[in-house]
Amino acid sequence: MADNKKKLVEDITPMDVDFAKWYTDIVKKADLADYSSVRGCMIVRPYGTAIWENIKNLLDGMFKESGHENVMMPMFIPESLLQREKDHVEGFAPEVAWVTHGGAEALAERLCVRPTSETLFCEHFAKVCNSYRDLPMLYNQWCSVCRWEKTTRPFLRTAEFWWQEGHTIHETAEEAMQETEQQLDCYARLCEEFLAIPVLKGRKTDKEKFAGAERTYTIEAMMHDGKALQSGTSHYFGDGFTKAFDITFQGRDNKLQHPHQTSWGMSTRIIGAIIMTHGDDNGLVLPPAVAPWQAVIVPVAQHKPGVLEAAEQLKQQLAGVCRVKLDTSDNSPGWKFAEYEMKGVPLRIELGPKDIEQGQCVVVTRHNREKHFVPLTELSAQIPVLLQKVRDGIYELALQNRANRTFSATSMEEIMAFATEKSGFLKTMWCGSLACELAMKEKAGLSSRCMPFEQEHLGDICPICGKKADVMVTWGKAY
Amino acid sequence: MADNKKKLVEDITPMDVDFAKWYTDIVKKADLADYSSVRGCMIVRPYGTAIWENIKNLLDGMFKESGHENVMMPMFIPESLLQREKDHVEGFAPEVAWVTHGGAEALAERLCVRPTSETLFCEHFAKVCNSYRDLPMLYNQWCSVCRWEKTTRPFLRTAEFWWQEGHTIHETAEEAMQETEQQLDCYARLCEEFLAIPVLKGRKTDKEKFAGAERTYTIEAMMHDGKALQSGTSHYFGDGFTKAFDITFQGRDNKLQHPHQTSWGMSTRIIGAIIMTHGDDNGLVLPPAVAPWQAVIVPVAQHKPGVLEAAEQLKQQLAGVCRVKLDTSDNSPGWKFAEYEMKGVPLRIELGPKDIEQGQCVVVTRHNREKHFVPLTELSAQIPVLLQKVRDGIYELALQNRANRTFSATSMEEIMAFATEKSGFLKTMWCGSLACELAMKEKAGLSSRCMPFEQEHLGDICPICGKKADVMVTWGKAY
Repeated sequence: MADNKKKLVEDITPMDVDFAKWYTDIVKKADLADYSSVRGCMIVRPYGTAIWENIKNLLDGMFKESGHENVMMPMFIPESLLQREKDHVEGFAPEVAWVTHGGAEALAERLCVRPTSETLFCEHFAKVCNSYRDLPMLYNQWCSVCRWEKTTRPFLRTAEFWWQEGHTIHETAEEAMQETEQQLDCYARLCEEFLAIPVLKGRKTDKEKFAGAERTYTIEAMMHDGKALQSGTSHYFGDGFTKAFDITFQGRDNKLQHPHQTSWGMSTRIIGAIIMTHGDDNGLVLPPAVAPWQAVIVPVAQHKPGVLEAAEQLKQQLAGVCRVKLDTSDNSPGWKFAEYEMKGVPLRIELGPKDIEQGQCVVVTRHNREKHFVPLTELSAQIPVLLQKVRDGIYELALQNRANRTFSATSMEEIMAFATEKSGFLKTMWCGSLACELAMKEKAGLSSRCMPFEQEHLGDICPICGKKADVMVTWGKAY
Repeated sequence: MADNKKKLVEDITPMDVDFAKWYTDIVKKADLADYSSVRGCMIVRPYGTAIWENIKNLLDGMFKESGHENVMMPMFIPESLLQREKDHVEGFAPEVAWVTHGGAEALAERLCVRPTSETLFCEHFAKVCNSYRDLPMLYNQWCSVCRWEKTTRPFLRTAEFWWQEGHTIHETAEEAMQETEQQLDCYARLCEEFLAIPVLKGRKTDKEKFAGAERTYTIEAMMHDGKALQSGTSHYFGDGFTKAFDITFQGRDNKLQHPHQTSWGMSTRIIGAIIMTHGDDNGLVLPPAVAPWQAVIVPVAQHKPGVLEAAEQLKQQLAGVCRVKLDTSDNSPGWKFAEYEMKGVPLRIELGPKDIEQGQCVVVTRHNREKHFVPLTELSAQIPVLLQKVRDGIYELALQNRANRTFSATSMEEIMAFATEKSGFLKTMWCGSLACELAMKEKAGLSSRCMPFEQEHLGDICPICGKKADVMVTWGKAY
């Protein structure tokens, strides 16, 4: 109890005071993750892991429904293999961890710990792809990868992170392009429908695209503080890698051809997005679809006769309805309220002697602390309704935050005014030049988030250089 | 078709001719795994991965039911951390891969790629364990680990392999010991009930126990060729590691104490055990519980009107009954029969025009090629019965093989006769000395598999040294 009480009174830093500190406080106090003694690597604790498992199950189900199969690839890539595609190696070599020794012996060739697995998949595709009948090959793997980042923050940027990486090859460019878009839609659906995070779908500029890709599509979410978080990407490679790795198949015309390729990934970063999209000064707010417990039953005056029995009965009743926890520990109800608010449990069910007498309970929705008095006989039917209300409620709040923080500019003055006074998304026209993209970064501190699929016509000139522009870019500061 | 036909006529090596070659033929031709260009590392292909996922789901369900929680730990261990427990580092340091560089920079301290994660868990436990109220901590993780093996074979011994590793700490030695036994039982249940592999439960000798453990329990399975395969181990550590890592908790008596610890693991090796326990000269034979497809529908004369429609209808009918696949490809029925026998699908359902006319189908059980004529109206009810028959049938065959290949000896002459003429398990009494264990290896080529929980009294002396012996050991050659 002593430890618990201490924990309870240590409030988390309010997000308006220090957003970064608020974030790490939540990561720690909601028992999501901890640091390890390994530089830049985190330990994902049981509560964080349970959230990731729920995300994984949702995504994995969608992948399998659309015909994808899981595989398990080695965690090492020989240096010579990484070097086979030149843009790719240039992009990744500076940030990989190198294995140089096995036991006491120096290796003949260094191995890098995979930062991503295009090269491994390509080497395998070259062996198993022979005919157009073998296509498409729709592979995915769940694993952790390693990128030697200089500065790290739990979930957002860590030297090791967990993700899925999909890798597919197709008979035609059209099919590969369709796959690239389909998988981006899959990520968008996960975010919007299940995680209640609105996302902006679009294409990355050449500067921001994946090393070796022809096109990179992205979904960009906006955090509480107005900063962007790239939440999932899907890449179209054309036949660049398949040529570099000599992957061929006998086509319908009996001629040897190179297949067209995609890859796409979503990582444990998305847990950072959940925290910074929905959390508040009382802690985490979890979208019901991925909450380890969707409801927690807190008995009130649990020493009184009948209360614990009724609470246990309620738990049984709800077992098939939602993921439910009953807390019968010695802690006070007030302490429990604070604890499960910190952990972001969507619904709190309070049940005391009076409630039992009246055949009801009190259900409190986490995000707005609204109280609902629900007859016990109706509870099983009401829980799904209330969970949906939480999802819709937090989605609406996030949408509103994004609307309030999205602006457009048609001149450099307006851009600078945004950059000095505001934080959020800024839409401008863009001429398409790298120079203007770099200038935007240097002068206004903004990076291009994407060229949104839903384009708007804000004018005809690039506000940075004054030349002709026919594409709209959304800019922002990013995690 | 050309590729497929070529594949069909290339028979696999019969197991009596060359068991090792038979094994690798099956791994390759059943599309379980492939080699990668990374020394000693394998690629687990979709079919192999699907089997592993089924095993994982069964084990994970059992772990969670008994209160275990999953976590995700870093894949690296700093050298100094690995060295904290001396027996442990001696056991593992010779076979780890070392990361020495991050990007272009040399690291201040080398990191090893985890060969197992006791040290990481201990470091974490030291931070999060404070009071007896925090105990037990029942953690598990699913990941891959790396041991720099000299000679490798797919699934059986690879430089990287996938596994789960459970790590728990407890208030008392008794509780920890109980956990060690409980988790061994869990592995035994997976093997016997779900994988249809009979296992011998017992304790490892000091020579064979895990580096740093006080006790190691094991389940040993016998392969077709009489060799043993260690299929899962569970370790009791006492408080050796918790002292070395300074893990303490405030006990019920308000005094600081060291918790008692366990770890336990099962790996992708078990797929090797499935292959070598149940497979035959026609390919893999999969236990129904983990088969990616439990039944495959092969239409006969599928060009005839109504056949494909009826087959599709059958598939719909069985969708909720078992994991079912319908193969409507252009390949001939004969080719499909061979293909799904190679892949070890437990039930093959043949459906042709005559069957449809008679309102029946033919169900063939993979392991004994027995034909069952089943009315279509009874099929949904019969499938679970037939799947159980397959499980029971292959379990019985494995049990028989083990019985036929288990012997006992009470003299060195009998031991040498076994060693030169037979392959299997040999039971003898043992004095308990390392010298006799080493002599057994040197003279007879046998290693101690375990001291079985079910002891038999074969005599009073150790046949190796002639001294007093009061424990029975089961010996064998092992993978």
